[in-house]
Amino acid sequence: MFNKRIKIKTLLAQDPESYREQEVTVMGWVRTFRNNQFIALNDGSTNTNLQVVAELGKFDESLLKRITTSASLKVTGAIVPSLGKGQTMELKAASIEILGDSDAEVYPLQPKKHSLEFLREKAHLRFRTNTFASVFRIRHALAFAVHKFFNDKGFVYLHTPIITASDAEGAGEMFRVTTLPFEDTPKNEDGSINFKEDFFGRSTNLTVSGQLEGELGATAFGEIYTFGPTFRAENSNTARHLAEFWMIEPEMAFYDLEDNANLAEEFIKYIIRYVLENNREDLDFLASRLAEEEKQLPQDKRSEMGLIEKLEFVINNEFQRLTYTEAIDILANSNHNKKKKFQYPITGWGMDLQSEHERYLVEKHFKKPVILTDYPAGIKSFYMRLNEDGKTVAAMDILAPGIGEIVGGSQREERLDVLLEKMKAMHIPMEEMWWYVDTRRFGTVPHAGFGLGFERMIQFVTGMSNIRDVIAFPRTPKSAEF
Amino acid sequence: MFNKRIKIKTLLAQDPESYREQEVTVMGWVRTFRNNQFIALNDGSTNTNLQVVAELGKFDESLLKRITTSASLKVTGAIVPSLGKGQTMELKAASIEILGDSDAEVYPLQPKKHSLEFLREKAHLRFRTNTFASVFRIRHALAFAVHKFFNDKGFVYLHTPIITASDAEGAGEMFRVTTLPFEDTPKNEDGSINFKEDFFGRSTNLTVSGQLEGELGATAFGEIYTFGPTFRAENSNTARHLAEFWMIEPEMAFYDLEDNANLAEEFIKYIIRYVLENNREDLDFLASRLAEEEKQLPQDKRSEMGLIEKLEFVINNEFQRLTYTEAIDILANSNHNKKKKFQYPITGWGMDLQSEHERYLVEKHFKKPVILTDYPAGIKSFYMRLNEDGKTVAAMDILAPGIGEIVGGSQREERLDVLLEKMKAMHIPMEEMWWYVDTRRFGTVPHAGFGLGFERMIQFVTGMSNIRDVIAFPRTPKSAEF
Repeated sequence: MFNKRIKIKTLLAQDPESYREQEVTVMGWVRTFRNNQFIALNDGSTNTNLQVVAELGKFDESLLKRITTSASLKVTGAIVPSLGKGQTMELKAASIEILGDSDAEVYPLQPKKHSLEFLREKAHLRFRTNTFASVFRIRHALAFAVHKFFNDKGFVYLHTPIITASDAEGAGEMFRVTTLPFEDTPKNEDGSINFKEDFFGRSTNLTVSGQLEGELGATAFGEIYTFGPTFRAENSNTARHLAEFWMIEPEMAFYDLEDNANLAEEFIKYIIRYVLENNREDLDFLASRLAEEEKQLPQDKRSEMGLIEKLEFVINNEFQRLTYTEAIDILANSNHNKKKKFQYPITGWGMDLQSEHERYLVEKHFKKPVILTDYPAGIKSFYMRLNEDGKTVAAMDILAPGIGEIVGGSQREERLDVLLEKMKAMHIPMEEMWWYVDTRRFGTVPHAGFGLGFERMIQFVTGMSNIRDVIAFPRTPKSAEF
Repeated sequence: MFNKRIKIKTLLAQDPESYREQEVTVMGWVRTFRNNQFIALNDGSTNTNLQVVAELGKFDESLLKRITTSASLKVTGAIVPSLGKGQTMELKAASIEILGDSDAEVYPLQPKKHSLEFLREKAHLRFRTNTFASVFRIRHALAFAVHKFFNDKGFVYLHTPIITASDAEGAGEMFRVTTLPFEDTPKNEDGSINFKEDFFGRSTNLTVSGQLEGELGATAFGEIYTFGPTFRAENSNTARHLAEFWMIEPEMAFYDLEDNANLAEEFIKYIIRYVLENNREDLDFLASRLAEEEKQLPQDKRSEMGLIEKLEFVINNEFQRLTYTEAIDILANSNHNKKKKFQYPITGWGMDLQSEHERYLVEKHFKKPVILTDYPAGIKSFYMRLNEDGKTVAAMDILAPGIGEIVGGSQREERLDVLLEKMKAMHIPMEEMWWYVDTRRFGTVPHAGFGLGFERMIQFVTGMSNIRDVIAFPRTPKSAEF
């Protein structure tokens, strides 16, 4: 057994007196080494370093020379209360073992502030910085909160397929998955590619959504959720887009649009509350980071609330609910529109809302998360339930301040005849979707669901402005490093 | 609000007296309808149906005609204690609403026993059978137990990339991910495919393992785990192989092989215990199913233990640990080998073990899970740590009765010079792996990890013999339906 260490987070949570006289072993990486005596040691369990004291004269100069930034150490000694500022305890080293050296001249992360862009190039090491350690511990906590929320409610976690022959959104550019060679690709007699020779005997892609398969689960288990990777082959090199990202897609039988919105709001509040309760240290760190960053911005570009304040505001206030039609009214009559400040002017009912319009509603008008419902049928997907008015569908988008759309969902069209008509009108290939239609043939039920983009949620909670900084190894156009 | 139902599982867990006089609403699908009076209603929360009583004469004949197998109903009424066999309560219907009809003549799942093969063709509906409902509720519970186990220990859940330019195992056939066209594929001057034109500006594949990226996380957070889909483009059409499956891969800094084996054993026992404690009804159902199925087998092919007994045995006994070298001795000296009963005879130290050898050790010799360690370096991956003997590596496989290899892991080679030499000898392309090697340059630490095939684990717990029956929509050669 090598590992009899205690984690620094566990250690720091204790009363130092409880360790007095007791020998403990810690292992971690050197953050700084001051005065040939004070080692700030970090083991990734918390951003707070443990101060290790190497008493002057006690250790060989040859050993001390190897205590450089990022070297890894095993230290055994006694915990003593600390008189130093900002720490309750320190470790008086009895023995120090160098586990791994690190050449401080070559190590890419120097003990100074690096730009996020620079750290993106060093994604294999950026977890070792306070910012990224906090972001990814929060990502973990949010993921766990997702599972806990749904498990506690009796939802079944369904792993929907990643490789798929169907295209849920009927749109969305997809990645091909294949084992066919580019050279001498097998062809049919008419010259087209013979996908019967491909691994799955047909043309296959990476999924853009698990929703359609999720509906199969919901119409058996009642309530299911997915949580897995999804893919878009869109050539969007922006701070808001990834080619590979994680989505959470709950799907519930016996739900209408209102039930759906209620669940989504409860869910979002639950996972934010979970992080506020369990990751306060990391949130505080990121809140300071963000406040610091915003000081660089002109006054009118700064957030009105700090990060923690914003999160508390979200969990303590009801989301604003309104229909698309009401939103169009508000936008059309806004001074912003009258003064022609929108890049895309409000042309009237039926138009698709642009992100500037959503931001206006959320950030200027309501100043809180908004649930927009009942969109025109023409701008939404085939599977959304047609409302009684015959022109809108029971869709909903949840818009968050600073992020925009964070949830998209709808009540699903459960009426076989309406669905078939819609599929025909929207050119959805029926022969590929027989299994989907079957759920409407055999005991169809009112049902609904939504999708939450996990990375957008992490951005909202951590205040990170670039989506590439909240996923471990981002996949974007022309970039698949690590 | 549509959904004010109570789940049948919640209802059945109560004392029927607590509901007396109280009106409840349930929604679900009809399993059977007997004597024009007794509806067995199921909502997917449990295999136990709720008996709904439609008193004779109270409902229109036209309504009763629509109560067919798989029709969906909303029923409101009063709970009354039941005198019927095997049920504590029943629902006396005050109102019955048909949510969705189902033509009993056309509905593929008749109220009789269907073969697993038949149900695989109906994977969109098979969740509605007791067998698959139980399997997938257990799959959910195991997944939750995985997250809970690691979260409680302070591991960070890391989403390693699905699309990757590297090949962790140095072997394994991979699926290509591309947006390049098969026709007029862009070429370089020398005639080779110009992958600079592909979406990621290079040739990319679906991941076979998140381990290498996991190590990047472990050397920052200390302890991480992955839980995501992995892919093998192997043309293996067997009951044990999937092209798309889920893996759990913990990776821990400051662990040696013994720490690694301890964690793996604790982990496996934890998730099995979790299911025994939380899914007893589903396990009991599957145990009966398996016992029934095994009655068809000749005596010597039947399991020695029932399903529950087997799971309890596993959690209550220590796994057998031995080295590869000891295993070869046992196998070479076995009567089985001497009588030439192995298809692949034991040729001596250095040979790779076949599944028949592993099964002999687990099922005949030790009769319990086995942790085999310290394999010859030549038959294992480049990243496994070379032992002091210079010829074996600190690898481990965990073998389970009836399943074979369920875990593969190792202590990782943390010594830069040894790793580089190994990579060179095994032709691992250094330029693609600079980020991996960097962890050995900057504060390298002893570390270890393992991978658990989630579907194999579900098979072990549920007793399902075909891996296609424990994943929702299996991906196998020539098959990517749904």
